[in-house]
Amino acid sequence: EFVARVSGIATMCKLPFQETADGLDAAFVGVPIDTGTSNRPGARFGPRHIRAESSMLRSFNGWTRAAPYESLRVADIGDINVNLFDLKDTCKKIREGYRKIVATGCIPLTLGGDHTIAYPILQAVAERHGPVGLIHVDAHADTSDVILGEKIGHGTPFRRCVDEGLLDCKRVVQIGLRGPSYSPDNYEWSRAQGFRVVEAVECWHKSLVPLMEEVRSQIGTGPVYLSFDIDSLDPAYAPGTGTPEIAGLTPIQGLEIIRGCRGLNLVGCDLVEVSPAYDTTGNTALTGANLLFEMLCVLPKVKYY
Amino acid sequence: EFVARVSGIATMCKLPFQETADGLDAAFVGVPIDTGTSNRPGARFGPRHIRAESSMLRSFNGWTRAAPYESLRVADIGDINVNLFDLKDTCKKIREGYRKIVATGCIPLTLGGDHTIAYPILQAVAERHGPVGLIHVDAHADTSDVILGEKIGHGTPFRRCVDEGLLDCKRVVQIGLRGPSYSPDNYEWSRAQGFRVVEAVECWHKSLVPLMEEVRSQIGTGPVYLSFDIDSLDPAYAPGTGTPEIAGLTPIQGLEIIRGCRGLNLVGCDLVEVSPAYDTTGNTALTGANLLFEMLCVLPKVKYY
Amino acid sequence: EFVARVSGIATMCKLPFQETADGLDAAFVGVPIDTGTSNRPGARFGPRHIRAESSMLRSFNGWTRAAPYESLRVADIGDINVNLFDLKDTCKKIREGYRKIVATGCIPLTLGGDHTIAYPILQAVAERHGPVGLIHVDAHADTSDVILGEKIGHGTPFRRCVDEGLLDCKRVVQIGLRGPSYSPDNYEWSRAQGFRVVEAVECWHKSLVPLMEEVRSQIGTGPVYLSFDIDSLDPAYAPGTGTPEIAGLTPIQGLEIIRGCRGLNLVGCDLVEVSPAYDTTGNTALTGANLLFEMLCVLPKVKYY
Amino acid sequence: EFVARVSGIATMCKLPFQETADGLDAAFVGVPIDTGTSNRPGARFGPRHIRAESSMLRSFNGWTRAAPYESLRVADIGDINVNLFDLKDTCKKIREGYRKIVATGCIPLTLGGDHTIAYPILQAVAERHGPVGLIHVDAHADTSDVILGEKIGHGTPFRRCVDEGLLDCKRVVQIGLRGPSYSPDNYEWSRAQGFRVVEAVECWHKSLVPLMEEVRSQIGTGPVYLSFDIDSLDPAYAPGTGTPEIAGLTPIQGLEIIRGCRGLNLVGCDLVEVSPAYDTTGNTALTGANLLFEMLCVLPKVKYY
Amino acid sequence: EFVARVSGIATMCKLPFQETADGLDAAFVGVPIDTGTSNRPGARFGPRHIRAESSMLRSFNGWTRAAPYESLRVADIGDINVNLFDLKDTCKKIREGYRKIVATGCIPLTLGGDHTIAYPILQAVAERHGPVGLIHVDAHADTSDVILGEKIGHGTPFRRCVDEGLLDCKRVVQIGLRGPSYSPDNYEWSRAQGFRVVEAVECWHKSLVPLMEEVRSQIGTGPVYLSFDIDSLDPAYAPGTGTPEIAGLTPIQGLEIIRGCRGLNLVGCDLVEVSPAYDTTGNTALTGANLLFEMLCVLPKVKYY
Amino acid sequence: EFVARVSGIATMCKLPFQETADGLDAAFVGVPIDTGTSNRPGARFGPRHIRAESSMLRSFNGWTRAAPYESLRVADIGDINVNLFDLKDTCKKIREGYRKIVATGCIPLTLGGDHTIAYPILQAVAERHGPVGLIHVDAHADTSDVILGEKIGHGTPFRRCVDEGLLDCKRVVQIGLRGPSYSPDNYEWSRAQGFRVVEAVECWHKSLVPLMEEVRSQIGTGPVYLSFDIDSLDPAYAPGTGTPEIAGLTPIQGLEIIRGCRGLNLVGCDLVEVSPAYDTTGNTALTGANLLFEMLCVLPKVKYY
Ligand SMILES: [Mn+2]
Ligand SMILES: [Mn+2]
Ligand SMILES: [Mn+2]
Ligand SMILES: [Mn+2]
Ligand SMILES: [Mn+2]
Ligand SMILES: [Mn+2]
Ligand SMILES: [Mn+2]
Ligand SMILES: [Mn+2]
Ligand SMILES: [Mn+2]
Ligand SMILES: [Mn+2]
Ligand SMILES: [Mn+2]
Ligand SMILES: [Mn+2]
Repeated sequence: EFVARVSGIATMCKLPFQETADGLDAAFVGVPIDTGTSNRPGARFGPRHIRAESSMLRSFNGWTRAAPYESLRVADIGDINVNLFDLKDTCKKIREGYRKIVATGCIPLTLGGDHTIAYPILQAVAERHGPVGLIHVDAHADTSDVILGEKIGHGTPFRRCVDEGLLDCKRVVQIGLRGPSYSPDNYEWSRAQGFRVVEAVECWHKSLVPLMEEVRSQIGTGPVYLSFDIDSLDPAYAPGTGTPEIAGLTPIQGLEIIRGCRGLNLVGCDLVEVSPAYDTTGNTALTGANLLFEMLCVLPKVKYY
Repeated sequence: EFVARVSGIATMCKLPFQETADGLDAAFVGVPIDTGTSNRPGARFGPRHIRAESSMLRSFNGWTRAAPYESLRVADIGDINVNLFDLKDTCKKIREGYRKIVATGCIPLTLGGDHTIAYPILQAVAERHGPVGLIHVDAHADTSDVILGEKIGHGTPFRRCVDEGLLDCKRVVQIGLRGPSYSPDNYEWSRAQGFRVVEAVECWHKSLVPLMEEVRSQIGTGPVYLSFDIDSLDPAYAPGTGTPEIAGLTPIQGLEIIRGCRGLNLVGCDLVEVSPAYDTTGNTALTGANLLFEMLCVLPKVKYY
Repeated sequence: EFVARVSGIATMCKLPFQETADGLDAAFVGVPIDTGTSNRPGARFGPRHIRAESSMLRSFNGWTRAAPYESLRVADIGDINVNLFDLKDTCKKIREGYRKIVATGCIPLTLGGDHTIAYPILQAVAERHGPVGLIHVDAHADTSDVILGEKIGHGTPFRRCVDEGLLDCKRVVQIGLRGPSYSPDNYEWSRAQGFRVVEAVECWHKSLVPLMEEVRSQIGTGPVYLSFDIDSLDPAYAPGTGTPEIAGLTPIQGLEIIRGCRGLNLVGCDLVEVSPAYDTTGNTALTGANLLFEMLCVLPKVKYY
Repeated sequence: EFVARVSGIATMCKLPFQETADGLDAAFVGVPIDTGTSNRPGARFGPRHIRAESSMLRSFNGWTRAAPYESLRVADIGDINVNLFDLKDTCKKIREGYRKIVATGCIPLTLGGDHTIAYPILQAVAERHGPVGLIHVDAHADTSDVILGEKIGHGTPFRRCVDEGLLDCKRVVQIGLRGPSYSPDNYEWSRAQGFRVVEAVECWHKSLVPLMEEVRSQIGTGPVYLSFDIDSLDPAYAPGTGTPEIAGLTPIQGLEIIRGCRGLNLVGCDLVEVSPAYDTTGNTALTGANLLFEMLCVLPKVKYY
Repeated sequence: EFVARVSGIATMCKLPFQETADGLDAAFVGVPIDTGTSNRPGARFGPRHIRAESSMLRSFNGWTRAAPYESLRVADIGDINVNLFDLKDTCKKIREGYRKIVATGCIPLTLGGDHTIAYPILQAVAERHGPVGLIHVDAHADTSDVILGEKIGHGTPFRRCVDEGLLDCKRVVQIGLRGPSYSPDNYEWSRAQGFRVVEAVECWHKSLVPLMEEVRSQIGTGPVYLSFDIDSLDPAYAPGTGTPEIAGLTPIQGLEIIRGCRGLNLVGCDLVEVSPAYDTTGNTALTGANLLFEMLCVLPKVKYY
Repeated sequence: EFVARVSGIATMCKLPFQETADGLDAAFVGVPIDTGTSNRPGARFGPRHIRAESSMLRSFNGWTRAAPYESLRVADIGDINVNLFDLKDTCKKIREGYRKIVATGCIPLTLGGDHTIAYPILQAVAERHGPVGLIHVDAHADTSDVILGEKIGHGTPFRRCVDEGLLDCKRVVQIGLRGPSYSPDNYEWSRAQGFRVVEAVECWHKSLVPLMEEVRSQIGTGPVYLSFDIDSLDPAYAPGTGTPEIAGLTPIQGLEIIRGCRGLNLVGCDLVEVSPAYDTTGNTALTGANLLFEMLCVLPKVKYY
């Protein structure tokens, strides 16, 4: 029987809810914070709104013919409980929550929350898999050492990850970087670590299919994490975010990037920085929901028709 | 341990979800339709948005000192599946769904949805309890015989109920009626049935505590249903609705009405016509969530400190 | 046959459109300007949005039992063409347009537009009727001599009217005045002319029915014009306006004022300063539409059931 | 004399209004429904808002140098009256209304309304012209057999048209299709009928001028209908719609498609699924108005400078 | 010469900006945080938006005839620099900033920011004046001991103040409290300290002029601080806030409270919790700006005409 | 020390404010009018909102490695005072204000305001530099002789400039023109003056880097003014403007145009027509702020790393 899309509790993609990751191949999990945000807040409501808009999604990927639910056991396992008044304590709670998830062998697909969360998630992921490759799609490098005098915030997660040896730096690529900066060369540090940096300007007027071929060969067969900041997209497509930067990627390019990950050994993915208060139509959350579904479709072992 | 309000799946009041009403004293249930709407649609998303905003509610009614969760077993049992393309079939689905709920002895607290739904709900309720009293709070009488040539729509539910003998007409009160009309005396039919009609103009500049004393004595001890159309409130307080009428009730008066129902033999309640697309701040849904919580607090057997 | 409210060209109240006032007892006419506005503009779109929202109105006044369309010949006669780049020329165009309307004996009900328009309208009205009484409902006195160095603007219309002898000053009342001011006593000039000034603070927590009794006796039987600035209402009820002032009138009080005009010799009415860009729900325009309908209902010769 | 664009009753393009299509070569007509919508409603207000925004359009197509009003007699003939509570009855009313329009030889340019309306419109069109070719621009194929158990809805119109032999299937093209789906190959049925399917992914990063050359040769000289669902466009350009899908067409491509229809034997056109409640800036309605004007400019017999 | 209100840098009330409080009797100062917020964030932008909307204010209080700028030297001294990633460090920065301000004898009028800031402000104020009286207008008591496991947050400031002996508890009044709660008696602790608690329900349908007479006599002649949470107002009047509660105070009552403070020895005032992302019309910020201006008007030594 | 971006008075780019241009190489200056607007007003608030959103900008241009603040003395010098009720007088005030600015040798970077302002600005600029070249980026030619019967308005500035010999017509280029028009060839007059016209359709699907090479060679080494109407961009990217036209430029192309001006002898720049009331997310103002910063970065003498 058909069920009206508008009906029912708003879990991600209207999947069943369960409390833990036990028995799952992949799980959607929310991390509702924005206390690592330097400009517009609101990403704490990202998970709730992404879930609401995800009710429009269906079972198959009509474009690519992926059939994720015929291939994997998937559920929505709810949100990490967070401490909105202490960002460092929140990081600890996230790390512990993800330790339990990855311990089961389940691949987490995260609904953010601001980008700070990538740091404790990667702590848990690297604890299990060792240093991982990283495909980081963003307007910003997020590699500052300190932000407003603090080590933890949405501008520093990948610096912290490198500090702690969580990343396999030769297998890191950052795509979509752009915007005004605090120093003349903003991406120097990234390059010095061995990251590949693909500035937005290199993506203008182009399909990213060729780029992703190169990325796949850079990443190889080792474990890799995909971290997708919605602000990598141009604000026309994703106004609902906290630090928009003009002249960004298109959703078409976003899809090319994610679909270009097919075949990689993805061990985790996130979609961060959706801030519903600035998403006047719901379409940024909808875009986030679509991108998360596309991530699910490129996980290892997903069947394609 | 505290759980951040922003965290977790958006069930009503963050209550546990269960599929049926079994074992419950009261249940929140959504009916996501707007296909009975004559002007602005959108009430199909009422249940989803009321649930989202209800995350701000807490365990006790700090004003009245009611402790509903210490008194009753309550859960969110999700939504009725609806047929968005056939309103008559939807009514059938609603009636059948509510038959199952009331059969268990559980009291349904409904998240609408447009006001059409009161008709099939009352069919199920009256099937169990016999003709019931009705406290109907609304800008509109909703007693038209036909609307745009049809018998079923959000302007006709209480006419249909009378047609089918579902109401104990001497124990019916309509509060808040107002606005332009299709005939010079819009409430004549209501009065002819024996309903008490309290026009909005009779409520202006006043506490409704004295009114509710009279209502309680009109209603007596028999079973009674409370149907609260959010458009009874002035559009300043509840802009997110489909047929707003100016110069309406205040939320203060709304609370006075609901709290004035304490002691009655309530067998069901609904809060209808929240249309989120016109609720630019979320505060209409929040108001709806609060009113539903207040209804829960006046159900029979709720303990007060 | 019923016609769906959502269907059809958006004339005022879905009335027939005609090009002139010939043969009409009353006519709705728009004056789409905001070039007399000192703060937020947008009132040029007031007539268009008031018309759109007026589709919800019906034939009778269900509250008061007025039957305007059984009593008067009424139509929408469209808008005055305006010169958006020259406010003084616009005033001339308005004056000439209204001369033609009032020459037929038709009573104009104006959809503004900013309040500047009251000046040229009253020129035309006084040319026909002689100096008229005025019921002016507003947060602001609109009696400045100059505004930003100019004689014409939405802060000066009633000063200009007095300068030109268009008003019968003993038969003028201003209701709802309030807010910060450029001088310690903002209403001194009004009082010096013989106007009655009723500050908002005198209206707080009260029905205005007694006030209107006094007003009717002040106004007597001579011709009187009703000018209603939507910003007289509190911004909670009418956010869609250019110079909102807190702690204003309620729509209930607005209705009491207009209904309190029943029996007066009204020769023209306007509803000004609806600025749709700030009316995120459409409800300010809807309020304006209702108030205009209520004005129609209190015109001379309207039948009541 | 110039007339300010902001002045006057909001007919389509500020054209004269007339009640019937008599004497017209082409007519704008509204069909204000959304009761065939499976997700976000609101398209019932599409005609009203497209008309309002169309006031910005002017007489000539400055880009293509078309002069439609020097070539054709055009008017706005208002809206079909609809039954909001019975979708099947609405379809009947639409079919009958269009029969009368096409009987006069007038070409209808439809302001939707949800996509359900294409079915009864094509019934009337095919009744006059025989099976027609179809250029269908959409994110969705709209060829489901049933939707939520029903035969009639905005996901089924072209299936119904094929069932009834209204289309010349070899002369059908669908452009812009994309998104998650209920089955792995969503467009199989279309292809099986002989339709050409151009998925969105085939349109990415490209001008559609070459595609339209192929389309013109596929369509040939027979009668053809153009049905343009605004959701074919990416939601960045057209957020105001009910079932947005990411990574869609651009308005540039939309113009290329419509302008590429010049020279075809167009017998009717529609622009559907504009849902104003989700169009926070009015720009989706404005885009719809522009696309309708462009359709007018490519009708047979339009003169170009 | 007149200066257009829309012109110029947006300082508070278009006052001159200066870096320190030197030479001032009173100063507007912003504290742009929301990291103490448990639900909707955004109050970090409160100061910026209150300043923008304050451009509508004028020199005199036309209602009360206060002439603050003829009486006091006033300026806008900008914002405290905050650490968005460490709430405790932010509190330290605020305390230090306010120490410098109050050291000059200048009275700070604070533009919040979430309510957490009242705690460090009162630390600085009490350091200078000793334990102070407090007029606290709010929907919430803000006297929790811990919130989400933390001692510092917008639910705890007045508990911390009592812990540190900053308040003269017999001279504390809390006005407007309401809403669901975590325990049956939410205001027990307040009363146990000797605070007067005036619940919202005690304010319904009433002028607060009599209440303020009692408050003035409770407060006496000692130093007193006024802390005004915009959520004390009903969400219809102040939607732009993070934790709205229905059935609150009106702006009229808000003015009665502030004007009722005239004659008291006010040593500081704040207006907190304006969250612009939820203030779709700007009118919450405008209300905040007006209330701050009214606070200025009741400071000691302000002249009245 | 870091300063939180959200903190502080909203000057452009958080630069120091000073009253005059003395001692500056470049200055941001606002011209807050919209009284030259033919459709949606609101650009009077452009300067205020551009300043607010510019708080996100940083010191360096991370893309191009420009270091404007290491090269030039720059400040925000506030707004020109305007006469909102007399457009011709406003033009006079602007001309006089700019005379003083350019007299100091300072280059003005203007925050508009509607496009009318380019006319008096160019009067002042040409008075100092003689007839200048012009790079005009816009959806509209703005070369009408009269608009609504008037010589002055946002559709006529460049016609007035040619009338008065302010432009070196062979060194004028107009980029991005498009849309419906009042005559079949809308750009005839421009071409007749010797302007180069680059219609939007010539820019579709393309990088504008090659175009700008041609433009640089057309412009040569003489003084040139850059006038950038935000409506040149597609409304998806810049909804917050008064006369949006579909199928426009992308911000990527906008950046290519501005960056392509590097090396030219720029003597003034403006960014006009940002209308905040239609900018529901703030991102149009943010785009304007970025474009103004990019203009600063290509001024003569800016150092690049
Ligand atoms: Mn990031
Ligand atoms: Mn980012
Ligand atoms: Mn109802
Ligand atoms: Mn109702
Ligand atoms: Mn006025
Ligand atoms: Mn006013
Ligand atoms: Mn479709
Ligand atoms: Mn579609
Ligand atoms: Mn508080
Ligand atoms: Mn509070
Ligand atoms: Mn322009
Ligand atoms: Mn333009």
